[in-house]
Amino acid sequence: MAENLTRKLIAEHLLEGRMKPGEPIHLAIDQTLTQDATGTLVMLALEAMALERVKTEVSVQYVDHNLLQTDNRNPDDHLFLESACRRFGVWFSPPGNGVSHPLHTRYFCKPGRTLLGADSHTPAAGAMGMLAMGAGGIDVAMAMAGEPFVLDMPEVWGVRLIGELPDWVSAKDVILEMLRRHGVAGGRGRVIEYHGPGLEALGVMDRHVIANMGTELGATSSVFPADAAVRDYLALHGRDGDHTPWTADDGAGYDHHEKIDLSELEPLIAKPSSPGNVVPVRDVAGAEVYQAYFGSSANPGFRDFAVVAEMMRGRNRPAQVSLDINPASRDDLRDLAGDGHLSALLAAGARLHQAGCNGCIGMGQAPATGRNSLRTVPRNFPDRSGTPEDSVFLCSPETAAAAALTGRITDPRELDMAHPKIAPPRRPAFDWENFAAPPRPQSAEETELVKGPNIASIPDFEAMPDELDLQVLLKLGDDISTDEIMPAGTDILPYRSNIPKIAEFAFRVIDKGYAKRAAAAREERDGHVIVAGENYGQGSSREHAAIAPRALGLRAVAARSFARIHRQNLINYGVAPLLLDDEDDPGELDQDGRMTLSGLRGAVADADSITARTGRGAEIVLRLDLGAREREVLLAGGLVNWWRAG
Amino acid sequence: MAENLTRKLIAEHLLEGRMKPGEPIHLAIDQTLTQDATGTLVMLALEAMALERVKTEVSVQYVDHNLLQTDNRNPDDHLFLESACRRFGVWFSPPGNGVSHPLHTRYFCKPGRTLLGADSHTPAAGAMGMLAMGAGGIDVAMAMAGEPFVLDMPEVWGVRLIGELPDWVSAKDVILEMLRRHGVAGGRGRVIEYHGPGLEALGVMDRHVIANMGTELGATSSVFPADAAVRDYLALHGRDGDHTPWTADDGAGYDHHEKIDLSELEPLIAKPSSPGNVVPVRDVAGAEVYQAYFGSSANPGFRDFAVVAEMMRGRNRPAQVSLDINPASRDDLRDLAGDGHLSALLAAGARLHQAGCNGCIGMGQAPATGRNSLRTVPRNFPDRSGTPEDSVFLCSPETAAAAALTGRITDPRELDMAHPKIAPPRRPAFDWENFAAPPRPQSAEETELVKGPNIASIPDFEAMPDELDLQVLLKLGDDISTDEIMPAGTDILPYRSNIPKIAEFAFRVIDKGYAKRAAAAREERDGHVIVAGENYGQGSSREHAAIAPRALGLRAVAARSFARIHRQNLINYGVAPLLLDDEDDPGELDQDGRMTLSGLRGAVADADSITARTGRGAEIVLRLDLGAREREVLLAGGLVNWWRAG
Repeated sequence: MAENLTRKLIAEHLLEGRMKPGEPIHLAIDQTLTQDATGTLVMLALEAMALERVKTEVSVQYVDHNLLQTDNRNPDDHLFLESACRRFGVWFSPPGNGVSHPLHTRYFCKPGRTLLGADSHTPAAGAMGMLAMGAGGIDVAMAMAGEPFVLDMPEVWGVRLIGELPDWVSAKDVILEMLRRHGVAGGRGRVIEYHGPGLEALGVMDRHVIANMGTELGATSSVFPADAAVRDYLALHGRDGDHTPWTADDGAGYDHHEKIDLSELEPLIAKPSSPGNVVPVRDVAGAEVYQAYFGSSANPGFRDFAVVAEMMRGRNRPAQVSLDINPASRDDLRDLAGDGHLSALLAAGARLHQAGCNGCIGMGQAPATGRNSLRTVPRNFPDRSGTPEDSVFLCSPETAAAAALTGRITDPRELDMAHPKIAPPRRPAFDWENFAAPPRPQSAEETELVKGPNIASIPDFEAMPDELDLQVLLKLGDDISTDEIMPAGTDILPYRSNIPKIAEFAFRVIDKGYAKRAAAAREERDGHVIVAGENYGQGSSREHAAIAPRALGLRAVAARSFARIHRQNLINYGVAPLLLDDEDDPGELDQDGRMTLSGLRGAVADADSITARTGRGAEIVLRLDLGAREREVLLAGGLVNWWRAG
Repeated sequence: MAENLTRKLIAEHLLEGRMKPGEPIHLAIDQTLTQDATGTLVMLALEAMALERVKTEVSVQYVDHNLLQTDNRNPDDHLFLESACRRFGVWFSPPGNGVSHPLHTRYFCKPGRTLLGADSHTPAAGAMGMLAMGAGGIDVAMAMAGEPFVLDMPEVWGVRLIGELPDWVSAKDVILEMLRRHGVAGGRGRVIEYHGPGLEALGVMDRHVIANMGTELGATSSVFPADAAVRDYLALHGRDGDHTPWTADDGAGYDHHEKIDLSELEPLIAKPSSPGNVVPVRDVAGAEVYQAYFGSSANPGFRDFAVVAEMMRGRNRPAQVSLDINPASRDDLRDLAGDGHLSALLAAGARLHQAGCNGCIGMGQAPATGRNSLRTVPRNFPDRSGTPEDSVFLCSPETAAAAALTGRITDPRELDMAHPKIAPPRRPAFDWENFAAPPRPQSAEETELVKGPNIASIPDFEAMPDELDLQVLLKLGDDISTDEIMPAGTDILPYRSNIPKIAEFAFRVIDKGYAKRAAAAREERDGHVIVAGENYGQGSSREHAAIAPRALGLRAVAARSFARIHRQNLINYGVAPLLLDDEDDPGELDQDGRMTLSGLRGAVADADSITARTGRGAEIVLRLDLGAREREVLLAGGLVNWWRAG
């Protein structure tokens, strides 16, 4: 049967399950990618798992997020990660190399492989004929340990590209068109597979732009074929041997269909404050611009900077515009310097920042209050830039450069110039010395982890006991978010590698006394339980929202319903998600009251419910809606214990 | 009479006083320089003074310190400064241009002129035959308003240079030799004037290195002649017309004498954690190095980066070394890119940071805990890098590059290579479009100041009343530092342009309730008084330590003695410095007690003392040790009011 590329890639890696949309499948993972913001917890998990050496073909640890070294904490994290790479057999990309996604494409991506990354933009590698997905840190740790990645079989959304992009329209406008048509949830449960004759004129780094921002549609991944463009890209970087053609079979079908005539596209822009808020640039033209910002994994290609350089060559920006250049990698910067593009940017008054994620993740270049910022980055969620009530627009390099030239939002087709044609770099920088390769296995176990004063091992968590005598420490309403459970922010995030310390900030916005009372509950009882309403743990997928309360003695959460990812995170760290029925009286479970659970091991092993006794002597039946592996993990006291036992 | 250059420069600008060391002199100021960390308060002072337009020949506002835009506060400050420059007729150097000192040298320095800068490294301009001095923000504001700068006539220290620097020894080693010989207080009360045949081989940017770090000797300034080197430097930048020869008269004498034979110098290094802790590099060779850091006003020249590039060309650093390049200016970066040096640095694995002060002032590139950092910056005070108990060494670019190549502290003479000879940039970047020139006077008064939500005008302070009924709010011991009065730190510093807000943090380390009790004292009485021991207000010269308590109602400090600069700052903001005699019983002045002062205006106008009545009814005679202008300023309620009164 003629299969599309996505299903071929899945079939090649399928270890368990049926390829029927919505059903769970287990996939073999060839490569993993971690960055420093997520990687420290991954490495601490590997330490807790006592892993000898990663089982993947390639695992790479990048340092690209936390590059602002205003005290010892970020550089200490970097050294910790470097030592962990030596210990576990992982490639290390030190600070200064640049953003994980374009670097992974340049050095490690191989057609036909699977990639699991602890970063939501991992699907960018789909540009290379790979199936690449973002996941939580503990999932990536498991993949590094050789465990399959479990997900629901996605539907495949075939997007047929025809025609060729007109002047002043580029890859970013293709993905903005998808967002314009379908919004930020349009890709949920789907892999977006691009095909058709329109692909021919799109190089790998154009496809990278499109695949990267498939994440903004909520897609599981985006996939492009490994065709002549991929072959040429690999050859340009001396990696001819890594090429294997991977394409959909002739006549393959898709679960959903879409067609984009590239020749009909025009410059598009996502208005504040959602990537789905897309309109033609001409609709918002004329608004004054404070900043034109270039960089990030959404426009990381040589072309994406060179076209700006050539638009600016011999011209200067209006004095009030901040022209911020954030190279995606040092290699890009070398290519731009070597071919003279960099000098044109500097002569135009550019602020050249270090290679990395930088302002795309709120680490620098925040705009002034109330001023418009045009950025080539993938996201403009409210305040992500760091400025309260910010006004960030997403667009192509051409559109942002037009604004830099005029000081106002400008459709680049209105400029009085020819659309610069950019040749690939003459001799692209490519240097394995950028990376520290993993040492040979025999030396790995002798490698000590370098832990600065702010890095602490993950606490050991005990297996699920048969009986728990718990304090009801918090009683909460509906829709409690992970931001409320574990706040982020510049005063808290630096403690991401220090669970005991970051735990002190848990629930701070709701109840400043939480951590202290949790400690008392551990002395007097077996820990505590949280009672909540619907949709507990919505929002960001951060795992600290599970592990930090667990470190303070959280053993169970009794809620009317759970947000999907946070429920998984609770199980992964050994916290039982107990379901309250609508008719249950939560008044029985007062804050500071008591809840005892008996026969817990048996119930978690195979029952649908467990009876809790409240402090007042009442009994409440709590449902246990758990899969088989979830039951195993909970009994073991979390995924780390489960893996060690197993 | 044959005069040295320093005395000629002073004579040329003397408005009042005798040129007798130690006696107060009033100097006309031709140019001023402010940076963003000090400039916002200067501009707020000009606003409070209702200044129409600056009276100087040239005033320039640079943005080089607070470039990390992680929220709206720094970029809002930048916009405020830009608008203030238009309002008051000041040149504006936007973020991205680079560090004030090398930029001022390149664009604005003129032989024979005086420069007053709200930055301690302002004396760097002494490389251009100027008399350049650092001062407090309010002093610079007064100079911008046309007031003379008042200082004690310095002694002149003639340093005769003979011989020529050997290979691998450069300008930094000259000033490190001065620090090795005389320590960090060796230059107090002196201007260091370099002369002799050894000058011939030292270009302007070499002299800049030496003059800049004269500040580390505690010198009032450092001065070099405007000779052929200055003429050539100006010509290279198309500024031939700005040259005037300025040299010492033949046979001129000096108050102190020194001789350095350049040919006998060797590579030197200042060990942690003082610039005065200088030893030969060979004494500490072999220690492992985490970071080699290049940049800052102490080694900002094209040569200082190019020599590193040529040492690294074709080589890579050991993986564990962070090779941090902080260009001093965008112009430097353009010159390095144009001449191919930048590519060599990038190929060697450099982390290229934005042009600016950056890690030199603790804004980035902090080293990891316990690791050695070799830097070309001027200071290695404890924790200045941002890392607690840091280990920062100061050295030349050659010495830091040798460490980058070997991973260990290395005397560069031990390297197996020739000392690279660096030609000046072929066509140095020079672009007035880097700056926003002040608009014509007529439009200035129509210009509104752009104030983000974090920028607040300086509060109006009333003139000294004849009677004050004060609460004794704090009773302190000896040696209270300005760090205790007004703490700095990343959570407080962003409020530097918001006096009411930053005041909330005053005395936080000593007494968290201070701000609250001060507010109560303003309701119940006329404000408060602080009682202290010896040396009140020692340490950093920050003016916020005076203005913030004043904004909370501080009207007088009664102490056994005051640190010189803080005493001046108190007077400048209208707070009376009252002297307790040894026999006074401070027990009479209990915390939360009361102190009333009557006949205050008359006493401040011309008496040597005033009698205070305590809450218990006792009387204490407090001495008034004040100069004539100080009495005027106090009566007016501070320098701003004094100036406005006219």
